[in-house]
Amino acid sequence: MRAPQSAAEGTTVADNLIDLRSDTVTRPTVGMREAMATAEVGDDVYGEDPTVAALEAEVAARFGHEAALFAPSGSMANQIALQLVVPPGEELLCDADAHVVTYEIGAAAAYGGISSRTWPAVGAQLDPDVVAGMVRPDGYFAVPTRAIAVEQTHNRGGGGVIPLATLRELRRVADEHALALHCDGARIWHAHVADGVPLADYGALFDTMSVCLSKGLGAPVGSLVLGSAEKIDRARWVRKRMGGGMRQVGILAAAGRYALAHHVERLAEDHAKAARLAEAVAPYGVLATPVRTNIVPLDLTKHPLDAKALATAARAAGVLISVLGPRTARLVTHLDVSEAAVDRAAEAIAGILRA
Amino acid sequence: MRAPQSAAEGTTVADNLIDLRSDTVTRPTVGMREAMATAEVGDDVYGEDPTVAALEAEVAARFGHEAALFAPSGSMANQIALQLVVPPGEELLCDADAHVVTYEIGAAAAYGGISSRTWPAVGAQLDPDVVAGMVRPDGYFAVPTRAIAVEQTHNRGGGGVIPLATLRELRRVADEHALALHCDGARIWHAHVADGVPLADYGALFDTMSVCLSKGLGAPVGSLVLGSAEKIDRARWVRKRMGGGMRQVGILAAAGRYALAHHVERLAEDHAKAARLAEAVAPYGVLATPVRTNIVPLDLTKHPLDAKALATAARAAGVLISVLGPRTARLVTHLDVSEAAVDRAAEAIAGILRA
Amino acid sequence: MRAPQSAAEGTTVADNLIDLRSDTVTRPTVGMREAMATAEVGDDVYGEDPTVAALEAEVAARFGHEAALFAPSGSMANQIALQLVVPPGEELLCDADAHVVTYEIGAAAAYGGISSRTWPAVGAQLDPDVVAGMVRPDGYFAVPTRAIAVEQTHNRGGGGVIPLATLRELRRVADEHALALHCDGARIWHAHVADGVPLADYGALFDTMSVCLSKGLGAPVGSLVLGSAEKIDRARWVRKRMGGGMRQVGILAAAGRYALAHHVERLAEDHAKAARLAEAVAPYGVLATPVRTNIVPLDLTKHPLDAKALATAARAAGVLISVLGPRTARLVTHLDVSEAAVDRAAEAIAGILRA
Amino acid sequence: MRAPQSAAEGTTVADNLIDLRSDTVTRPTVGMREAMATAEVGDDVYGEDPTVAALEAEVAARFGHEAALFAPSGSMANQIALQLVVPPGEELLCDADAHVVTYEIGAAAAYGGISSRTWPAVGAQLDPDVVAGMVRPDGYFAVPTRAIAVEQTHNRGGGGVIPLATLRELRRVADEHALALHCDGARIWHAHVADGVPLADYGALFDTMSVCLSKGLGAPVGSLVLGSAEKIDRARWVRKRMGGGMRQVGILAAAGRYALAHHVERLAEDHAKAARLAEAVAPYGVLATPVRTNIVPLDLTKHPLDAKALATAARAAGVLISVLGPRTARLVTHLDVSEAAVDRAAEAIAGILRA
Repeated sequence: MRAPQSAAEGTTVADNLIDLRSDTVTRPTVGMREAMATAEVGDDVYGEDPTVAALEAEVAARFGHEAALFAPSGSMANQIALQLVVPPGEELLCDADAHVVTYEIGAAAAYGGISSRTWPAVGAQLDPDVVAGMVRPDGYFAVPTRAIAVEQTHNRGGGGVIPLATLRELRRVADEHALALHCDGARIWHAHVADGVPLADYGALFDTMSVCLSKGLGAPVGSLVLGSAEKIDRARWVRKRMGGGMRQVGILAAAGRYALAHHVERLAEDHAKAARLAEAVAPYGVLATPVRTNIVPLDLTKHPLDAKALATAARAAGVLISVLGPRTARLVTHLDVSEAAVDRAAEAIAGILRA
Repeated sequence: MRAPQSAAEGTTVADNLIDLRSDTVTRPTVGMREAMATAEVGDDVYGEDPTVAALEAEVAARFGHEAALFAPSGSMANQIALQLVVPPGEELLCDADAHVVTYEIGAAAAYGGISSRTWPAVGAQLDPDVVAGMVRPDGYFAVPTRAIAVEQTHNRGGGGVIPLATLRELRRVADEHALALHCDGARIWHAHVADGVPLADYGALFDTMSVCLSKGLGAPVGSLVLGSAEKIDRARWVRKRMGGGMRQVGILAAAGRYALAHHVERLAEDHAKAARLAEAVAPYGVLATPVRTNIVPLDLTKHPLDAKALATAARAAGVLISVLGPRTARLVTHLDVSEAAVDRAAEAIAGILRA
Repeated sequence: MRAPQSAAEGTTVADNLIDLRSDTVTRPTVGMREAMATAEVGDDVYGEDPTVAALEAEVAARFGHEAALFAPSGSMANQIALQLVVPPGEELLCDADAHVVTYEIGAAAAYGGISSRTWPAVGAQLDPDVVAGMVRPDGYFAVPTRAIAVEQTHNRGGGGVIPLATLRELRRVADEHALALHCDGARIWHAHVADGVPLADYGALFDTMSVCLSKGLGAPVGSLVLGSAEKIDRARWVRKRMGGGMRQVGILAAAGRYALAHHVERLAEDHAKAARLAEAVAPYGVLATPVRTNIVPLDLTKHPLDAKALATAARAAGVLISVLGPRTARLVTHLDVSEAAVDRAAEAIAGILRA
Repeated sequence: MRAPQSAAEGTTVADNLIDLRSDTVTRPTVGMREAMATAEVGDDVYGEDPTVAALEAEVAARFGHEAALFAPSGSMANQIALQLVVPPGEELLCDADAHVVTYEIGAAAAYGGISSRTWPAVGAQLDPDVVAGMVRPDGYFAVPTRAIAVEQTHNRGGGGVIPLATLRELRRVADEHALALHCDGARIWHAHVADGVPLADYGALFDTMSVCLSKGLGAPVGSLVLGSAEKIDRARWVRKRMGGGMRQVGILAAAGRYALAHHVERLAEDHAKAARLAEAVAPYGVLATPVRTNIVPLDLTKHPLDAKALATAARAAGVLISVLGPRTARLVTHLDVSEAAVDRAAEAIAGILRA
C-alpha cells in the first residue's frame, strides 16, 4: 500500500518527456490561469460562490439535468452519486473493470456500505440482457439490486464508447426493475465528440451522472455530480460528510468554465492523435481494442516484451506510458501533447516494439 | 422489503405437506431433543459452556483446523470469516451467485465495508484462471484483492460439487497472489459424501471456513467458523460485535454434536432421494444441471409453466417447492422427507409438468 | 483483544463456587429444560416457528407494543433497534456508561454508522434537561440528532432504576425534538418488580425496546426487539443481515416462554439477596450506590484492596465476583444462587473487606 | 436536511455587508491570486505537484512532524487522521462540542465506523482527569478506547485556547493508556499567536493533527493532515478513498504557501478586533466566555432578544453574524473585515442589544 513518493522526493516529470500516462496530467493553459486569477468567489459551503454556481448551472443545463454539484475529484463525484441511489447493504451492478469498483479504493463498500456484483468487462461492450439477468428482486431473502453503473467512455475498456442504442436498451432494463442508472461520465465528452451524440441525449438516460473537468478538458481539479434538484440537494449534504465542502473554490470552477468553453470540441484532435499512435503500434499485434477516443490500450500477451519492459524502454526514449497489468499498458493523448510529440512518441514506441 | 408473515399469522406448515423448499426446515429428532434436554451448559460468552467447547473442538478436528467458533447462523459464520480476512475498503472475489453476496443481505459491504467483484456463476463450475485474471495487485491506485470465496456445495448452483482438483488449483492462485481462501461450506458435508473427499482434505485448502449444522445435518440452529487459533480468537470478538455471543447455548451445541454423530453419512440417502426426483422431472426438460447432491434445480425456460405456476400447482398437490426466479425453482431433500414422500412428490410434480 | 479461553481449556466454573459475576450465568431449570424438549418448532427464517411467534406476541402484548422479534442476544436486539431509528452518519445520545456504547464492541458505529455523543453517567440518574441541551437540530451544518437511548435498570449504574416520572419527562424532550426514544431494557423486569411500574407503562414511552430473557429471567439464550409492526417488519430484515436469523429456534423460545411464566415476579427474591449482600459490605464504605435491584456495585476507591485483589481473595473463599475497573467491582444475584449461598458469600466478602 | 441555496439562487453576500459569520468567508488577496496564477503544478495524485510538495514539507517542518498531506477541507483532514488512529468499532473520546462530532456530519461513524463517547464541553476547558476516567481498557468485553481528540482553538468553545500545560497533562494520560492524541488544529495558528506557544511545541504533543489554511489564514481552500511519514503514507491512500485526491492542486497550495508567509502573525490584529467587539457587547451581559482569539461567543439566555432576532436586526444594520442555537450566536473577525468595519459593527450590535 505504498503511495507514490511526493514531488519533494524528486519525481516531478521533466518538461522534455512526452507524458502519455493519462489525460489527468495536463497543466492549466495561460487563458485558464487568467480565468482563475480573476474569478469572482465566495464561500461555497454557504452556497455563496457565484463562479461555482454558474459552473453547476451550466453543466446541468448541458446534460439537461435539474442540478449539479462541484466535487474535488471524479471519485468523490461518483461516490456521492452512488450513496444517493443505493442504501447501505443494498446492491449496485457494474462491470468488473469499472472505475467505481477499481480505482476508488473500495469507497462504495467502505463508506457507502454498497454491495456489488459485476459482469465481465470486454472493452466497452455491454449486453443489457446479461445485466438484466443479474438483477435481484426486492424482498426479504436476497440483497435487493438498486442501481446499475456504466462508464462512458470506458477507461480500462480502452476508451471505448458504448453506443447510444445500447444505453437506451439498458435504460429499459433499469426501468423494468425500478433501478437507478448511474453514468461515470468522466470522459463522456469524448463519447460526445466521437459519436456525435448530444450531451443532453446522454443526460436523459441517467438518474445520476459524474462528469470530469480535469481529464480531457484540462482543468486542474474538479468533477460534478448531476441529478434532480432533490438529489443534488441531498448530494450537498453527502459531499460535506465526505469532506468535499470547499470554500472559495470558484478559483477552480473558473478553470472548469474556461475548459467547457474552449476544450470540448478540440477533443477531436486528441482522438486523431490516438489514432496516429494506434496506427503506429498496430503492425506489432499489440492493440487491445480498436481506438475510438483518446486512449490506446496495449495488450502485450503475444509480444516478447512485457508491460514493464515496454514502459522502461519508452521512458529511456523520452515517452511515459502507463502499466495497467503484467502485459497490459496504455497510451493517452491530451491537451499537453502536441502533434509533433505524438509523432515522436509513435516512432519511438514502434521502434521498441519492432526490436 | 416485506418480511414473511410470522407463524402467529398462520403460515405454519401443515404436517401433511411434503416440504421440499429447503433442508433448513428439518425439525429435531427425538434423539436430538434428548441430547438438548440433558446438555451440560455454562455461560459461553465467558467461554464456559463445555458442550459448545466440545463441539468447537470436534468440528475443528474433523477439518484439521486449529479452532472453531459456534455462531447462530451460516450467514454470521460467513460474515465473521470475511471480516477476518478482508479489511474495510479492500476486495473479495466470488461468483455472482454466491450465498455471501446474495442471501446475506449485503452484510459484507454494509458491516465489513468489503468491496466485491464477481465472476459469472455457471452451476458449481469454477475456472481458477478466470479468478486469477480478476485479481488486483496491492498498491496505491486500485482496491487490493484480499480474498476469494467459494461455496461447496453450491446452493444456487444446484447443489453442484467443485472437484477437489479445481479447488487445489484455486489454492495455488490464492497463494501466488497472497490471498486468503474462504469456503462457505454450509453443505460441505454433502460434497464429502458425494465425492468421498475426506473433510480434512477440504480443510487443508482454506484459510477460513463456515460449516452448518442446521441444513442437511438437521440440527435446529448453528454454524461454525473455522480457522487458525489466532483467527478464531479474533472471531470471538467479531461475533460479539455482530451480536452472536450467546449464553447457555450448549443446548443448541448438543443438537449439533448429535447431528455430527448421526446425520453425516446418511446424507447419501438424501442424495438418492434427489436423484429419484431428478429422474422424474428429467423427461420434461426442466433439469437445470445434473443432480449431484440433495438439490434438484429446475429451469423452466423452455416449459410452458413458469416457476410460480409450478409451485402453486405443487402446493395444491401437497408438495412445497422453492421459487428462485421467474423461471427457476428448486427441490431439496432432507432428513424429514421419507422415501415414500419423495415418491409421492416425484409423481405429483411429474404429473404437473406433463399436463 | 484476547478473548476468554474456551471451556475446552478448562475454565468451566466448578459447581461448588458461588457465582456472583452476572445473572447471565444461570443454567436452565428442570422445568425449563422440559419446555425446550417438547417445544413445537418450525423454520423461523420462513416465519414458521409457532413457539417463537407465540413468544413474540406475548412479549409485545406485555409491553403494549404492536410487535416483537426474537434475537440471539441483547446486543443484537439493541443494535437492530438502533439501526431502525438512526440512519448512518446521524446521531444517538446516551449516557457514557450505557451498554450500547460500552459492551457492544462499537457495533452502533461499526455496523450502523451511528454517531454518538454521551452525557456523563451518575448511576441511573438522568437529567432530561441535560439531554435536551445536547440535541442538535436537523439541517445542513451539523450531524442531526435522531434518537436517545436509556438503560433500565442501569447495568454499570449499579442496577439503579430510572423513575417513571423522569422517563416521562425525557419522552417530552424527545417529542419536542422529534427524536426516537429507545430503551435498553435487558433488566427492565427488575425495574418493574422494584418500582411496581406496569410493563405497559414503560412500553408506552419508547419507540423501540430490547428486553432480555437470559439475564434475570434465567433462559439460556434470547432477547427481543419491540416496536411498531412496521418497525419490526423492517427489524426482521436487519436481523437477517446481522446474521441473527435462526431456524428451529422455538427450542430457545420455549425456554423464554417458561421464564416469562415463572421467573418474573420471583426477581423480588434476587433483590432481597442483593440487599443482604449490600448490608454486609456497607460497613466497609464500599457500596457505590444504594442497591435497588439485583446488582451490588462496589467502589473500592477508599478501601486498601483494589478490585482485582478483592476478586482474587473472594475466589479463594469460593465466591466469584466481577471486576469492572481498577477499583470497581460488582456482585449480582440471580436464580442460581440460593439464600444460603448468599449468606455464605456475604460473610466471606465482609471478612475480606474487614481484614 | 435542506442544504443552503446555491449562489445561483441569489444568496451571494453583497460587498457592503460586514460579514462576521466566520473566518471561512475571506476572499483571496491580490498577492495570493498572483501566487496562484503563477504556481508551478503537476499531477498530485501521481505525487508530482511541486507546489503541493513544498507546502506539505513546510507545514510538517513548522510543527516538527515528519510529513503532511494536503486535503480539500478541514473535515477531510480530521477524518483521514481519525481513520488512521481508530479502527472501525473502536473508540474515540472527545468533548461533546467538538467539531469532529458536530460539524463533520457523522463521518467518523459513517465512514470510519468509529465509536465515540464525549465529555461535557465547557468552553475550551479541559480536565485531563475526567478524560482519563472515561478510558476503556483493551479487551474482549468492552469497546477499547484508541484515541483522544482535542480542538485548538475551540470553535464552539468561543475560540478559547487550551493551555499548553493542560495539553501536556493530557499527553501523559494518553501515554499511560497507549492512546493516540489528535489535534483538530484548524485554528491552532490563533492559539500560537494568542499564547505565544511555538507551533513545534504543539506539534510535539500529537500523533496526528489537522491544520487549516482557509479559515484565519485566508487561503480559499485547503487543510493538511500531519503525522509520521508512515502515517502520512497511509493517509495518502485514505485520502484517495475519501475522494480527496486532486490533480494540479498546486494552484491552491500556492495560496496556502502565500498565507503561511503573510497571514500568520497578523492574526493578532483579528484578536484585537474581536476584543473590540467583546468590549462593545460586554455591558449587555451577553459574552459567553472571555474572548481570547478571533471569536466572540454570545450567550443570549438572559437577554430579551434571541439569537435569530439579533441576527435579523444585525443584518438590517449591515452586519452578518452566525446563529449557533436558539440563544447562542457568534461573531468572528478575519482578514476581510477592516478595523473601521469592526467599529461600525460593534456600534451596530451594541445598539441592538441596548434597545
